[in-house]
Amino acid sequence: MNGAESLLRTLLANGIDLCLMNPGTSEMQFVAALDRVPGMRGVLCLQEGVCSGAADGYARMTGRPAATLLHLGPGLANGLSNFHNARKARSPIVNIVGEHSTQHLRYDAPLTADVEAFARPVSGWVRTLDSAENMGFTASEAVLACYGPPGQVASFIIPADHSWSPAGEPGPVVQPSARPIPPAAHIQAIAARLRTPGAALLLSGTALSERGLTAAARLGVPVFLNRNCGRIPRGAPWSFAHRIPYFPEPAEELLSGIQQIILVEAEAPVSFFGYPNRRSTMAPEDCEFHTLAAQNEDGPAALEALAAGCPSVELPRAAALDLPTAEALTPDTIGAAIAALLPANAILCDEMVSSSEPVQLHLNHAPAHDVLPVTGGSIGQGLPVATGAALACPDRKVIALEADGSGLYTPQALWTMARERLDVTAVIFVNRRYRILDVEMKRTGTTVIGPRADELVDLTRPDIDWRKLGESMGVESVRATSTPEFIQHFRTAMSRPGPFLIEAVLAPE
Amino acid sequence: MNGAESLLRTLLANGIDLCLMNPGTSEMQFVAALDRVPGMRGVLCLQEGVCSGAADGYARMTGRPAATLLHLGPGLANGLSNFHNARKARSPIVNIVGEHSTQHLRYDAPLTADVEAFARPVSGWVRTLDSAENMGFTASEAVLACYGPPGQVASFIIPADHSWSPAGEPGPVVQPSARPIPPAAHIQAIAARLRTPGAALLLSGTALSERGLTAAARLGVPVFLNRNCGRIPRGAPWSFAHRIPYFPEPAEELLSGIQQIILVEAEAPVSFFGYPNRRSTMAPEDCEFHTLAAQNEDGPAALEALAAGCPSVELPRAAALDLPTAEALTPDTIGAAIAALLPANAILCDEMVSSSEPVQLHLNHAPAHDVLPVTGGSIGQGLPVATGAALACPDRKVIALEADGSGLYTPQALWTMARERLDVTAVIFVNRRYRILDVEMKRTGTTVIGPRADELVDLTRPDIDWRKLGESMGVESVRATSTPEFIQHFRTAMSRPGPFLIEAVLAPE
Repeated sequence: MNGAESLLRTLLANGIDLCLMNPGTSEMQFVAALDRVPGMRGVLCLQEGVCSGAADGYARMTGRPAATLLHLGPGLANGLSNFHNARKARSPIVNIVGEHSTQHLRYDAPLTADVEAFARPVSGWVRTLDSAENMGFTASEAVLACYGPPGQVASFIIPADHSWSPAGEPGPVVQPSARPIPPAAHIQAIAARLRTPGAALLLSGTALSERGLTAAARLGVPVFLNRNCGRIPRGAPWSFAHRIPYFPEPAEELLSGIQQIILVEAEAPVSFFGYPNRRSTMAPEDCEFHTLAAQNEDGPAALEALAAGCPSVELPRAAALDLPTAEALTPDTIGAAIAALLPANAILCDEMVSSSEPVQLHLNHAPAHDVLPVTGGSIGQGLPVATGAALACPDRKVIALEADGSGLYTPQALWTMARERLDVTAVIFVNRRYRILDVEMKRTGTTVIGPRADELVDLTRPDIDWRKLGESMGVESVRATSTPEFIQHFRTAMSRPGPFLIEAVLAPE
Repeated sequence: MNGAESLLRTLLANGIDLCLMNPGTSEMQFVAALDRVPGMRGVLCLQEGVCSGAADGYARMTGRPAATLLHLGPGLANGLSNFHNARKARSPIVNIVGEHSTQHLRYDAPLTADVEAFARPVSGWVRTLDSAENMGFTASEAVLACYGPPGQVASFIIPADHSWSPAGEPGPVVQPSARPIPPAAHIQAIAARLRTPGAALLLSGTALSERGLTAAARLGVPVFLNRNCGRIPRGAPWSFAHRIPYFPEPAEELLSGIQQIILVEAEAPVSFFGYPNRRSTMAPEDCEFHTLAAQNEDGPAALEALAAGCPSVELPRAAALDLPTAEALTPDTIGAAIAALLPANAILCDEMVSSSEPVQLHLNHAPAHDVLPVTGGSIGQGLPVATGAALACPDRKVIALEADGSGLYTPQALWTMARERLDVTAVIFVNRRYRILDVEMKRTGTTVIGPRADELVDLTRPDIDWRKLGESMGVESVRATSTPEFIQHFRTAMSRPGPFLIEAVLAPE
């Protein structure tokens, strides 16, 4: 058994059976071993950001790691921005990176780079394998590390000769550490705080699950949620929980009057960016924070313990919604159409940026679904995360709500959707502009956007043809320029499986 | 004057008038300042790898830096792989990265990351600005640093508040350090070595220029060149200089009998990858190496001094070449067609990977041109480097020789070519496979490529439609499936300016 085979067997023994891959020469042993060791699904991605984003989406939906296989420092580099998002989503991932063979590393060959240095900013665990014999054991360590809690990226760097050399037995099956439940006395103390006026809950991490939210609903206090959490149950049953807004002014308004916030796997809320003459924190200045459960603890269990004496509550169910009748296609009409046509148990990957709020308002009335939002603010996650979510949940409809700006960072995900016949409907919100930057430019003190600045925010000259872009990667693609057209196309997409792209050309504002 | 304006004025005073940009909120002050401070050409790229690759291409052609403007850690992360190539090309670049405002940095906001850590593996100089007042001075330091010699990436990280706050005067105009010329005694010693049997020259860096090669030709010894140098003069006049082959076997054959290699801004040649049971060095084991000029020295001047007593030689000129007559479209017929139709003084960006050798053989007979090859082996540089070369040299025809695998890493460069009306002809060699990996898989010990491994090398299911992909980004695109078709399309492309894409579907091997 060579090292690559030992690695593969270790991953499989530990339940990792999906590998998002963009391999090169130094990873060829692993690729070759796929035919000798059955059970690993190798999914090819044409750019590494698709690998890392898809592994993130898979982890968000399953709580379990997929593996990524990347080629040396530069291949890893292309995956870093979506690993940044995975880090903020607390997603477990085993990130395997090939390295030059040990005898070759002393030379400054073209691809020689400091792979560990590339990996560190996004990884909770980084290790370069020291010998083929230690392959199995170190791979098991990587698996254990990625689970945390909380989940993290474990980057395992493997010199090529350790893959092709004889190795020992596969590594052991590891038992991830359980998330501790806070002690009863601590929960009682928090319960007392919750009974004081102006108390509220803020949920993130695994607390932001159906179980956590169901318990939170029983507590009779306002429930807020971290909008940048990896996975958020949304729709009518969960609409009682308020997403903290993106901009500080509406966030401050929402939180005004709150005197104590109980944090459940969450941190005190801060704005996305800092602005001139404005503080970064968004709760009232005299608000107190108390932690019910830390990021590594079992938030849902803590919430259930906290709610032990409270009666259960009936959560609202989605009613039938009317389709929008306005002709002009806007984020509002798209949101209304999606909410009305949404199948049960859908997964929505949201990278709409400036179009997000009006759509999410409608989705508050839709059937229960999961939202996979932006976590680390690294643009280009929407289509890759949708790819991973669809690999994780083949029986659920995945809808990627994508902007025409952010969608252009990693459009190669469309090809993997086509190859794997993933059930993803990509809705591209086309406003031909980095619209959010118009807003942000003004917020940082620019009153007039001049013609030269405008060029750096404008996505026309030439317009991007998303229908052709989707078709170029093998995805059936259509264009909607009115609300009725959008409704027709979205209905088609919901009626059958497989990848589908709708270029939704928004009416001028 | 705020910090952003001071930065802009400092760059302009130092002759930096091109900025490849993918800005976000923290860089909006710089964008806004473009309308107040004339002279900077801001070029929008839709993914950061296009920014870094284009800055590399610009530097390779001009020897001068462009600036890049990227958004925080994740934006920088997307640019890293092409910065890796720039580092190996010794390209000077001033890489400006926005950072959260200093008061915001203490919070773990979504985009918070260790920006310096992301920058370090690819940068020769990294600095986070400490105050708005020091903006101008530190920007001048960045400019000085990027010149080296040799050239390098200088990463200048700027917290947003230092851009929006009042700043002092712009920084000084800096004088890059001159490359020293090796002392006369050293050159005489090398001259003596050159007269011994089995001596040869190996050129890289700035020595691999028309001036350096002209001097080298007079020395009457074999001249070799580093195939991964940033810019290589090629074509009939320079065909006497031999590119060291990619694979070790032909490299060893080419270098057999060589007893002394004189290095001019070069290092001893090593293979791209290490392989089982094979050494990494490619010269004969008893070959001696002596350095005429180190990477920071003036190679062309050293070569001219070395050749002082030698007669000048007549360099061959390109003869008229026949067009290929075979029907089937292959790298050989494409190479023959390009060589026959190549305009004077063209720039060829070569990322063909497995198709490169047969094309380059024909180009040895073509008119003089510059080749911008793969330097760091980071895939996805071809189209971005071509973008930068076209921005640097608007009067020269740029031809991007791109593979269908490597072209898919950063296809967003096509949009910038369209927007800026750059004179780039992209030839996509379509073999629907990571062909090089077939070869590399066998070299690392795999005799049979099984069906599951095959899926990770195969680019069909679905086929990528490059014509639609090019059109989706606004580039006129055509498909050639035979040699006559290719000739017709390539002739069209050479006859008029502006971006053009030819999807060259190769005949099955």
